[in-house]
Amino acid sequence: MEEKARLSPTLAEIVARLGGELVGDPKVAISGVGAIDSAQPGDITFVAANRYGSRLTSTRAAAVVLSAAHREATSLPRIVTDNPYLYFARIAQLFHPAAPPVPGVHGTALVAASAQVHSSACIGPYAYVGEGATIGSAALIGYGCHVGDNSHVGAATRLVANVTIYPGCRLGERVLVHAGVVVGADGFGIAWSGERWEKIPQIGGVTIGDDVEIGANSTIDRGALEDTIIEEGVKLDNQIQVGHNVRIGAHTAIAGCVGIAGSAKIGQFCRIGGAAGILGHLEICDHVTVSAFTLVTKSITRPGTYTGGLPHMRHEEWLEKAAQFRRLDDIVARLQKLEKKFTDREKRN
Amino acid sequence: MEEKARLSPTLAEIVARLGGELVGDPKVAISGVGAIDSAQPGDITFVAANRYGSRLTSTRAAAVVLSAAHREATSLPRIVTDNPYLYFARIAQLFHPAAPPVPGVHGTALVAASAQVHSSACIGPYAYVGEGATIGSAALIGYGCHVGDNSHVGAATRLVANVTIYPGCRLGERVLVHAGVVVGADGFGIAWSGERWEKIPQIGGVTIGDDVEIGANSTIDRGALEDTIIEEGVKLDNQIQVGHNVRIGAHTAIAGCVGIAGSAKIGQFCRIGGAAGILGHLEICDHVTVSAFTLVTKSITRPGTYTGGLPHMRHEEWLEKAAQFRRLDDIVARLQKLEKKFTDREKRN
Amino acid sequence: MEEKARLSPTLAEIVARLGGELVGDPKVAISGVGAIDSAQPGDITFVAANRYGSRLTSTRAAAVVLSAAHREATSLPRIVTDNPYLYFARIAQLFHPAAPPVPGVHGTALVAASAQVHSSACIGPYAYVGEGATIGSAALIGYGCHVGDNSHVGAATRLVANVTIYPGCRLGERVLVHAGVVVGADGFGIAWSGERWEKIPQIGGVTIGDDVEIGANSTIDRGALEDTIIEEGVKLDNQIQVGHNVRIGAHTAIAGCVGIAGSAKIGQFCRIGGAAGILGHLEICDHVTVSAFTLVTKSITRPGTYTGGLPHMRHEEWLEKAAQFRRLDDIVARLQKLEKKFTDREKRN
Repeated sequence: MEEKARLSPTLAEIVARLGGELVGDPKVAISGVGAIDSAQPGDITFVAANRYGSRLTSTRAAAVVLSAAHREATSLPRIVTDNPYLYFARIAQLFHPAAPPVPGVHGTALVAASAQVHSSACIGPYAYVGEGATIGSAALIGYGCHVGDNSHVGAATRLVANVTIYPGCRLGERVLVHAGVVVGADGFGIAWSGERWEKIPQIGGVTIGDDVEIGANSTIDRGALEDTIIEEGVKLDNQIQVGHNVRIGAHTAIAGCVGIAGSAKIGQFCRIGGAAGILGHLEICDHVTVSAFTLVTKSITRPGTYTGGLPHMRHEEWLEKAAQFRRLDDIVARLQKLEKKFTDREKRN
Repeated sequence: MEEKARLSPTLAEIVARLGGELVGDPKVAISGVGAIDSAQPGDITFVAANRYGSRLTSTRAAAVVLSAAHREATSLPRIVTDNPYLYFARIAQLFHPAAPPVPGVHGTALVAASAQVHSSACIGPYAYVGEGATIGSAALIGYGCHVGDNSHVGAATRLVANVTIYPGCRLGERVLVHAGVVVGADGFGIAWSGERWEKIPQIGGVTIGDDVEIGANSTIDRGALEDTIIEEGVKLDNQIQVGHNVRIGAHTAIAGCVGIAGSAKIGQFCRIGGAAGILGHLEICDHVTVSAFTLVTKSITRPGTYTGGLPHMRHEEWLEKAAQFRRLDDIVARLQKLEKKFTDREKRN
Repeated sequence: MEEKARLSPTLAEIVARLGGELVGDPKVAISGVGAIDSAQPGDITFVAANRYGSRLTSTRAAAVVLSAAHREATSLPRIVTDNPYLYFARIAQLFHPAAPPVPGVHGTALVAASAQVHSSACIGPYAYVGEGATIGSAALIGYGCHVGDNSHVGAATRLVANVTIYPGCRLGERVLVHAGVVVGADGFGIAWSGERWEKIPQIGGVTIGDDVEIGANSTIDRGALEDTIIEEGVKLDNQIQVGHNVRIGAHTAIAGCVGIAGSAKIGQFCRIGGAAGILGHLEICDHVTVSAFTLVTKSITRPGTYTGGLPHMRHEEWLEKAAQFRRLDDIVARLQKLEKKFTDREKRN
């Protein structure tokens, strides 16, 4: 998204800044980053897995980041490092830093009288900042974003566009909120009266820690009585649903389309695969990996990987398996019958 | 979301209004509601399940709502009732009523010449009301909401923010539509020409009954020829997809991330768990519960609970089970072979 | 959505334009299209499947589109054709053409100085067109839509409302983008440093071909280094998530709530059922059908239908089956034991 910076550091300068071992001409100037197959002359690229190895000979890149295992796989100038993917991320950050927003309140933005907006913040076109809301330094309230009454947006936090923050929510510093995100809508709190559903007012808020990223069109509900909490460094992909009173531990990463039901507690350093479902009122401990498409039905108390989604099959094969699955009790009954017959026979003999 | 009302009824006044049996000092004044662990002095809290029982001794709440089973579990002033959760919901409504919007059309709102807006309705900043649209009394068209031509928004219905209502949709009274909801987008109607997909114009509308709630970023498609219909009292959580010509019966509640394919009919008083999927052109009768993560593949004609999502396992265990699932036909074949051998042997003996 | 055109072609005129065999009075005038049960006098309806056959006698429609198999099922004027569904789609298009937008830039729209907007395009209320962006002829940038810097919107493409296009994205011609869609948000690119996640700047774009339709609240992420690509004629339903660097082949149709992980390549002419999940870094060849609720875990190299979602059962039955599924290894072990016993015995005999 950011304008490409006009800088061309040498490999020597890059290694001086980011570490790693330089093999080849230290004076080679790098003007950008690129994928191995589409890199332009002057770009630096990377090799993170064995399967890229054979494409190293055809790349037009000026230099490569790779691990010791690939050290001799190319004669290009190269940086050898333990974690080429991370190293490349840092080079890319160098060339594409998150630009601070241009300070000021756009003429079409609406800022309530009692709101406090830092002078270095940017309130974009058609944005709205409610009564008692506070906007930190170098924060961006982008086009068409709504910050409700008494909400807080921390320093250097960016709401990209068409984001809705309900009243009474707190976002930390350097949070990145993508377009279409909704923070603080009512949790799904209803009580059955015997005749109809009655609404349980949702009077908790949402607290989001520093350095969180929230993907496009994700939704994070406010708590019923206490806050929904996303701890620092959590990374959420697109279209994730976080129910009321959920707590997500620091540095947990969650892939797209995951649904987390109310009051679930997810630990720190967890990784949740795409379209997984987490039932409510359970706890997942730290350092748990949940595979894509997995339904977590009860608490997980030991670190490790947990899985539940059946892989695809040819449709005809699937029909057969699904039918046999439905007849599993018949299979067990037949097995028991055979076992009994055998035991009876053995007794007789 | 609502400003806390400045009222402090006594327990006697609460019981006079909402019923229940009062045990303890009737003159205790209540200033708010709180969760058992975080209630402030002056708050009333509740106990709905056995697991909260032991935390009753440490709560700072001034009073508790509980069932007869917990009657003697505390010496705090308390209200005994059959359904503490529902009772607490009603107290919470008392303290946090849905405030009627401030009447008027914001200076930045755009209201078409032929639209009819009730004088007690509120049209918020950057909102849009199209030609021929009608907005009922005390309705709220919130910040950045779009009401298409010839659509109708009933009395006391609230569109919170960034909601899009396409033309030709009808919303009943006291409907609550959360941020990012889209009502009336085209259903997924395409016909294959042999070379490419051709669009089937979606010329039906959407009809939404009274007292419906629609969670953030949910989408309800317009009908192909006739209307998509959500009956009164239906409660939809966030990120639910309702296909064209679906009908959802009155007082059905649907949890987050559910997808309902075109022309499915769901009965009244149903409960659909999170991330369930309902295939198209089928019917679910009244009083059906569908568990989370369940795929409904054909009509359900008897009330009851239906389930389909496999629970998570440790990954290694799962790999084993998934492999055995793939070999179910082998298991059945081996079983048949053994059975035949046994029968042959029995015949011989 | 479109205003009903005031035209009343005769059956003879329709057949002259769209083909098919006319049975009955060619001078019958048709004023609209309708479903078989709710058609108004003057409407034309259709029968695409056997189950509608018996309702042909009660319809109020003036004429029917049907296949040769139903030719004699009614005495109404009728058009006989190989593909009644497609034929009806084309008649509906006749009565409900996508109206070209009214040219002009609304007074509240913001168009950057260096943007190029074709004189026949419509920039709606509160819309935004960024620096260097280009908007083609007869394109519609609807209410509250945001087109980022240097993005391109092709001729006759329509962004309905509250759509966010990030900078550097390209949309082809006649693309229809429904409300709440987000195109070009950052892909989920993060690298683990050992202590925290570091962001990998997402510097690729999004390229969308001609005649694509994107359903409400869907999200299409920008590429990490190269573009995410949606080829021509692709039809996406609502709430679909397309990860970074995904490629979707021409004329593929994808139903609602599908999630596609990063770098997956989907072929041409595929059909993906609702709520399916496609893992990342795999390839699906052309002409593949994936059933609803199916998890695709590895590449598919042969055309055909693939399935993975277990159908719902009564809850009690499901509990039994799920328990037996968990004991599949026990079943296999018992089977092996029996087989061995039997073999041992046969050897002894």
